[in-house]
Amino acid sequence: MSNVRELARQTLEAYRQFLETADTRVKNSVLDTIAVLLGERISSLLDENRKDVLAAKSADMNPALVDRLALDEKSIRGMIRSCAEVAALPDPAGKVTDMTVRPQGFRVGRMRVPIGVIAIIYEARPNVTIESAILCLKSGNGAILRGGTAAFHSNRFLIRIIRDALQAAGINPCLVSFLESRDRQAVDELLLQDDLVHLVIPRGGEGLIRNVVEKSRIPVLKHYKGVCHVYVDRDADLDMASRIILNAKTQRPAVCNALETLLVDAPVAADFLPGILSSLKGKGVEIRGCGETRRLVPQDVQPASEKDWTEEYLNLILSVRVVSGIDEAVRHINTYGSGHTDAIVTRDIRTAQAFINRVDSASVMVNASTRLADGGVYGLGAEI
Amino acid sequence: MSNVRELARQTLEAYRQFLETADTRVKNSVLDTIAVLLGERISSLLDENRKDVLAAKSADMNPALVDRLALDEKSIRGMIRSCAEVAALPDPAGKVTDMTVRPQGFRVGRMRVPIGVIAIIYEARPNVTIESAILCLKSGNGAILRGGTAAFHSNRFLIRIIRDALQAAGINPCLVSFLESRDRQAVDELLLQDDLVHLVIPRGGEGLIRNVVEKSRIPVLKHYKGVCHVYVDRDADLDMASRIILNAKTQRPAVCNALETLLVDAPVAADFLPGILSSLKGKGVEIRGCGETRRLVPQDVQPASEKDWTEEYLNLILSVRVVSGIDEAVRHINTYGSGHTDAIVTRDIRTAQAFINRVDSASVMVNASTRLADGGVYGLGAEI
Repeated sequence: MSNVRELARQTLEAYRQFLETADTRVKNSVLDTIAVLLGERISSLLDENRKDVLAAKSADMNPALVDRLALDEKSIRGMIRSCAEVAALPDPAGKVTDMTVRPQGFRVGRMRVPIGVIAIIYEARPNVTIESAILCLKSGNGAILRGGTAAFHSNRFLIRIIRDALQAAGINPCLVSFLESRDRQAVDELLLQDDLVHLVIPRGGEGLIRNVVEKSRIPVLKHYKGVCHVYVDRDADLDMASRIILNAKTQRPAVCNALETLLVDAPVAADFLPGILSSLKGKGVEIRGCGETRRLVPQDVQPASEKDWTEEYLNLILSVRVVSGIDEAVRHINTYGSGHTDAIVTRDIRTAQAFINRVDSASVMVNASTRLADGGVYGLGAEI
Repeated sequence: MSNVRELARQTLEAYRQFLETADTRVKNSVLDTIAVLLGERISSLLDENRKDVLAAKSADMNPALVDRLALDEKSIRGMIRSCAEVAALPDPAGKVTDMTVRPQGFRVGRMRVPIGVIAIIYEARPNVTIESAILCLKSGNGAILRGGTAAFHSNRFLIRIIRDALQAAGINPCLVSFLESRDRQAVDELLLQDDLVHLVIPRGGEGLIRNVVEKSRIPVLKHYKGVCHVYVDRDADLDMASRIILNAKTQRPAVCNALETLLVDAPVAADFLPGILSSLKGKGVEIRGCGETRRLVPQDVQPASEKDWTEEYLNLILSVRVVSGIDEAVRHINTYGSGHTDAIVTRDIRTAQAFINRVDSASVMVNASTRLADGGVYGLGAEI
């Protein structure tokens, strides 16, 4: 058996033992211990991280990436806080729903259960190591972690903390495994172990995700990008629409739930567009508009090309299109969107309901900013 | 764009139109029309099916497979009945659960939505064509069907019926597509279209399923086999245990929820095993036992090898093992089982609860036969 396969086998075995014995109290005590050990070993962790950062700098790594690699006391305090937050969440495992008595006389219910062994492939960001491990633990899953090799020393040290915490609770430490090999082939081999690993979660850019999808024989939980829309309907409260759009576009433009394309219903376009586009420009947003948008607001609107409708700018750029009502808006979103998060602004409850039913996206919102899309905000729990 | 990719693209487009417009009434009217057309065209369907059967016979196809390929008036009546049954089911799409008001003041709910375009790869069984298409339709999904090429004429005719019914309801007939090419490469190519197809369901033997998993870049919904267990606990009602075991093993041994391995708790083994094994032998069941089983029942028990614990016999063969209590039973099931359906017989509610929590299987039963595992019986709807 290869090393990678053996690692996966050990993780699966530890997961099964965990499934048979772990209760919420034990899980939370492990999270508490991880937090304590992070605090106790903070200076050694910073030493290990320094090794990674120095190597990255001498290899001329892009400074933005070095930034995400580097830890300091504040970011480690953030990890400690995450442990407490996840411990405070309700335990998702074991929840029984839909308990009914069938006509034949027996009772049937559904119980929420862990997934099994989850492989997480991510970039050189040590905080993802802790975040992934504690979410897997709390939800009762085993984890095989493979972060970017530039974070090798930091990750190895963090995994040691996690495993020490597991051991202190009498849990097989193989429950959280670290794919140590810096070889890319080790990842490729891991992605073939579909009898031992139940889910792969790639966390990172589109290139990393596509590579995992191409090579994996295991189901992959993914989203490539977030091309999010706000549709301003003819029955919208236009002041509310302005506030939503400014928030969705400018609060944090580089994240996946930021607004990328604004759709405006034709009957309100002439009233609405000049004001909102001028406010956006005031915040430094570049506008790329359809022909009608440019006719209504001639100054400072670049022409949008077909490519703009599918673009995830992650930047202070917004594409704008005037549409002839909800039908065209929905068609635009389902054709060009990414199925992440899309919003309508309207006071008409029937239009809102039609939008919810017809838009094919994970989050569909009414009179709210796309930026609110988040498991925690929804009350659906922390998420990866 | 290749033909296969174009077919997938058309299906996705039709799915999106369907998502935007289909309501329960429209879906059910399509199912009704399919039933009517099946009745009206029964003799042409039998003609097409005869072509397939003759070709299969002259190619010396295994008679059991010819049997599954051949249609007669009775099996077509079964298809018609299925349409009515699926029409009578509640519409799964649009159901909203967990509607709550968040502390920030907005309302959040989850809505059950279709999956998208589903590719179904199956053997030369024309009834699967209808069953797959009507379940996809009712749940609001698009379908790309690829049945075994030996059923080509039957399938082509059935797809024409389905598409005529869609068209009669004003629905884009591409919603249900037929991968006509008899070339295996067409299937391989379909399995790479992960931007157009959202789920693949292989229906058939383990070889067909493994082949799909190896080649697919799209998530695959699968189960390889059903190695189902009944564990008779020390606190079991032994009469009930006997009835459950006889039903689970002999009612229909060739299906995936039939019993394959019996685990008996040591304290009741000497009392229980002689009687039940003699009843099973009376029904023609071959017994393969562990050392302790053979010590307790020396006559007519073959020795079980390690391989027997993972075997899906699909036949009148049963492996039997004496275990030292629930811990060993759970460990056996989680190690050798297939995660399909496993049952405990016990009167102790705490033992039952521990078994439910610790066994890592899709269906876990208490004091019931594994044969009951079925979406319809559970009241969770028809299933593929």
